[in-house]
Amino acid sequence: MDIGFIGLGNMGQGMAANLVGAGHRVTVYNRSPDKAEALVQRGATAARTVAEACRAEVVFTMLADDRAVEAVTLGPDGIAASLPAGSTHVSSSTISVALSERLAAAHAEAGQRYASAPVFGRPEAASAAKLFVIAAGAPEVLQPLSPLFDAIGQRTFVVSEQPPTANLVKLSGNFLLASAIETISEAVALVSKAGVDRQQYVDILTSTLFAAPAYQTYGGLIARQEFEPAGFAASLGLKDVRLVLAAGEQLQVPLPVASLLRDRFLTLVATGGGHLDWSALATLAARDAGDSDHSA
Amino acid sequence: MDIGFIGLGNMGQGMAANLVGAGHRVTVYNRSPDKAEALVQRGATAARTVAEACRAEVVFTMLADDRAVEAVTLGPDGIAASLPAGSTHVSSSTISVALSERLAAAHAEAGQRYASAPVFGRPEAASAAKLFVIAAGAPEVLQPLSPLFDAIGQRTFVVSEQPPTANLVKLSGNFLLASAIETISEAVALVSKAGVDRQQYVDILTSTLFAAPAYQTYGGLIARQEFEPAGFAASLGLKDVRLVLAAGEQLQVPLPVASLLRDRFLTLVATGGGHLDWSALATLAARDAGDSDHSA
Amino acid sequence: MDIGFIGLGNMGQGMAANLVGAGHRVTVYNRSPDKAEALVQRGATAARTVAEACRAEVVFTMLADDRAVEAVTLGPDGIAASLPAGSTHVSSSTISVALSERLAAAHAEAGQRYASAPVFGRPEAASAAKLFVIAAGAPEVLQPLSPLFDAIGQRTFVVSEQPPTANLVKLSGNFLLASAIETISEAVALVSKAGVDRQQYVDILTSTLFAAPAYQTYGGLIARQEFEPAGFAASLGLKDVRLVLAAGEQLQVPLPVASLLRDRFLTLVATGGGHLDWSALATLAARDAGDSDHSA
Amino acid sequence: MDIGFIGLGNMGQGMAANLVGAGHRVTVYNRSPDKAEALVQRGATAARTVAEACRAEVVFTMLADDRAVEAVTLGPDGIAASLPAGSTHVSSSTISVALSERLAAAHAEAGQRYASAPVFGRPEAASAAKLFVIAAGAPEVLQPLSPLFDAIGQRTFVVSEQPPTANLVKLSGNFLLASAIETISEAVALVSKAGVDRQQYVDILTSTLFAAPAYQTYGGLIARQEFEPAGFAASLGLKDVRLVLAAGEQLQVPLPVASLLRDRFLTLVATGGGHLDWSALATLAARDAGDSDHSA
Repeated sequence: MDIGFIGLGNMGQGMAANLVGAGHRVTVYNRSPDKAEALVQRGATAARTVAEACRAEVVFTMLADDRAVEAVTLGPDGIAASLPAGSTHVSSSTISVALSERLAAAHAEAGQRYASAPVFGRPEAASAAKLFVIAAGAPEVLQPLSPLFDAIGQRTFVVSEQPPTANLVKLSGNFLLASAIETISEAVALVSKAGVDRQQYVDILTSTLFAAPAYQTYGGLIARQEFEPAGFAASLGLKDVRLVLAAGEQLQVPLPVASLLRDRFLTLVATGGGHLDWSALATLAARDAGDSDHSA
Repeated sequence: MDIGFIGLGNMGQGMAANLVGAGHRVTVYNRSPDKAEALVQRGATAARTVAEACRAEVVFTMLADDRAVEAVTLGPDGIAASLPAGSTHVSSSTISVALSERLAAAHAEAGQRYASAPVFGRPEAASAAKLFVIAAGAPEVLQPLSPLFDAIGQRTFVVSEQPPTANLVKLSGNFLLASAIETISEAVALVSKAGVDRQQYVDILTSTLFAAPAYQTYGGLIARQEFEPAGFAASLGLKDVRLVLAAGEQLQVPLPVASLLRDRFLTLVATGGGHLDWSALATLAARDAGDSDHSA
Repeated sequence: MDIGFIGLGNMGQGMAANLVGAGHRVTVYNRSPDKAEALVQRGATAARTVAEACRAEVVFTMLADDRAVEAVTLGPDGIAASLPAGSTHVSSSTISVALSERLAAAHAEAGQRYASAPVFGRPEAASAAKLFVIAAGAPEVLQPLSPLFDAIGQRTFVVSEQPPTANLVKLSGNFLLASAIETISEAVALVSKAGVDRQQYVDILTSTLFAAPAYQTYGGLIARQEFEPAGFAASLGLKDVRLVLAAGEQLQVPLPVASLLRDRFLTLVATGGGHLDWSALATLAARDAGDSDHSA
Repeated sequence: MDIGFIGLGNMGQGMAANLVGAGHRVTVYNRSPDKAEALVQRGATAARTVAEACRAEVVFTMLADDRAVEAVTLGPDGIAASLPAGSTHVSSSTISVALSERLAAAHAEAGQRYASAPVFGRPEAASAAKLFVIAAGAPEVLQPLSPLFDAIGQRTFVVSEQPPTANLVKLSGNFLLASAIETISEAVALVSKAGVDRQQYVDILTSTLFAAPAYQTYGGLIARQEFEPAGFAASLGLKDVRLVLAAGEQLQVPLPVASLLRDRFLTLVATGGGHLDWSALATLAARDAGDSDHSA
């Protein structure tokens, strides 16, 4: 299949490579063109503009945030202006439900197809084609995409015929992660003030009821107080919690834990920790317990 | 070893049986004596009083709550009054840090030894000797208990020389579970209002970042809205959150998520749901979203 | 002075009448023109368009929300397109900080002047020229407005040279009101479950430490459970709390009580109470206490 | 009337003096006896023991906390052991609902009468007989106390026939004060980060909707950042919020704002501010906003 791929960050690199590896003709585009080199060596073609990457049956976007996706899709010479009628834009970025709705409308108006397919997984999973793909879109749009999703992920979940619903599910996953971080942080502040070793405590949790990747990853970072460099920055955590709350407001669903997380991330950002890993919420729990030794 | 075992509920049955199975002479006591029968058939001896069960080197207690443990230990003809000097009381119940401190003091005064050894695991794990034992106590007290812990559990974590610290760790685990329940509840309220199937959503979570027993168990109950009969009642959830908050206050550790959970459990109890499984917090999230269809 | 006045709702009526009464030539505009009649009888001139009302040295706007102010100001044939250079737009509506910033920029670009002057007070205070005016703007812009503020209010507070700051102060006042409502609601739920008469309780509060209009007004509504017709609807309360939170996020100020209020208002709206007075938050406190008798 | 008065702190001094001034024979007792001197000069008699102060028809207690009231009332040679049958204990201290219930039971068992009569007002109001008395008790117990309440206060509110209910109302008042403090703190953090002068902001509030003693007192302290010496220490604020939450749990009334306040006070105490005035909650709001300049 002729595929365009826009956005060659840590995640996009691996995803595009796996599409190349599955035998597709992939034209890649990145704002900083040097990111395309490794993919060209593997057989991809480098596009100099977004429009060039849109000469395809399917164009993926895997970008940092709403602003980037909006610019690439709806801006002048963007995807909506360039993609042939009948071709499909697959948006894999973590974006707001509201933007996803606007993309859906814009593509519909332009006679193009649109699907949302955000993913769960870190860059290593992207490289190894082990992502989980959360897909939403009309059945006739999703059906031909199925082999592409298989090329980048280990499993695809089709959650809705409405593309924005996949974005909602993705955002809710980040909300669950942030909640786990905050809760571990509070528990660690509690037991460590009673003298329990943080690492041992996290070992107990992750050996027993919480033997899950989320608790292992973030419990470990919190136990080791390893907040730099950020795997996912607190400022992005704040953004995603804001997007979850906005979705909750649109759907009229109160989310008290998300509200609490918003204030915590905002505190972290306001006190100079926006660049730290979002697990640095743990420094606030320690600080509020008067445990100056454990603060960042 | 001569062992007494007091409290033959779902958990205590399995633990006592495994101590018998490991070749120890076990004298069992339960307020309702019929619970002892199965154990007597396996080779245990039935005691008619707490005092009788205390003619031992080690006496375990595995009871429902502070009140029961206090009555059995500090009441007239209780363990503190009956256990020989030098023998050890191993408290495995989920009790408050404050009561554990009082037990430690009472046993010290009586020349007895005391260890805390609450466990993680459900009745099936207790039967299968697959519990995780969270032990705390003086090294010389814990050392001879090691084979007993091996008989009932798959792994022992020694977290402190202060017995109450094991109770703190156990309570913190229940806090983490309750937090996971609340967070899943909010997320499910959110995505299901957008039309996502609850069961599929939980499948996504537990296939990916949250592939942990806690999320599988409670996510499943929430997806199926299966809140009766209660595996662990909301009223007990409220009690444990209260104990965590009390421990936090004693140690001066603010726990905002625990505070939120306290209000949620209190709402559930006040509105008639105290007997439901604690995962029925999900009915509140659905109710507050105006999703009457999904409420209990 | 030649004055335009746009927005003749409950508040605007009184404000415009007082400007007429102070001897100014006032041209009034309202989307539904019949609202202008009473003012014309007092000596005002009715404009058929926004542009007509802009043939003035000063044009006031007193409209319902961001959307209305944005349409009237930035829309085609709006104030920014119609007001003579050097004339001043005085925005008295309760709008977002962000919109106030956009208005400031638009008027600056058009060579017009802009001041924010939201008010504290209810319709009766507007009629009686007893409002409190919260003004912000450049000194040279505000100075000539001083007699106009005196005509509509009992006192003017100049809080900043930046117009949006007056909007922030106004929003913060609504946040304080909503907080008082929620707190009274919780306290009333508590004492009334112990059998204390609600009205007597509110009398105690407002005779002693809380002898303030806010507590008298909302305490009374809560005691009498008088939530219809709404003086200020819960859906507007939700909007204003959202605007306060947005301002807090822009300024990086966490506002935990505002977050809690957001979830409460969202719950009220999601469960069908958006049209009730915002003091109907009291129905949630009663409901969560299992006090079905006291719920709306 | 023969009256005993136990507890001659800032509040008790004024109350006892006003009882003397109304012509009653007052026997006073304080743990530190020098506090009695001024009252003896006005005509009171000094008792050397609690029991001596109990040779009376009515004995008032005005003490610091539960512990003091429990010791004086239920301890050896305490009020319950010393007061003649048929005489009345009037408890004016701010104590827990639970302790008030225990006092009621103890006095009933001893054939004594018991009323709760906590007060609203500061030491100056106590001296000036301007307190507000919140009374609860059986009508036949309260009726003869009426002239005594008139001697110490400007108005008496009889809220219930159950004495502990007066304690609940008193505690709820402190909850409302703490809520006002927290809300003002958040609002001040918000507007001051936008450059608004704190004192002017508080002036606006207390000139308009919040022209109440509570907002004037605490708004002023927050504007001036005047947290020492404490009028009412943060550690006592924490205690009272804890008692409100305990009462809420007993009555099954969730109190989300009180939960938030508990965590805030606990943070303040854990980070070394327990001795500051409880209005020092404002330092947390400023700190979390990154406004280091305004923190304590």
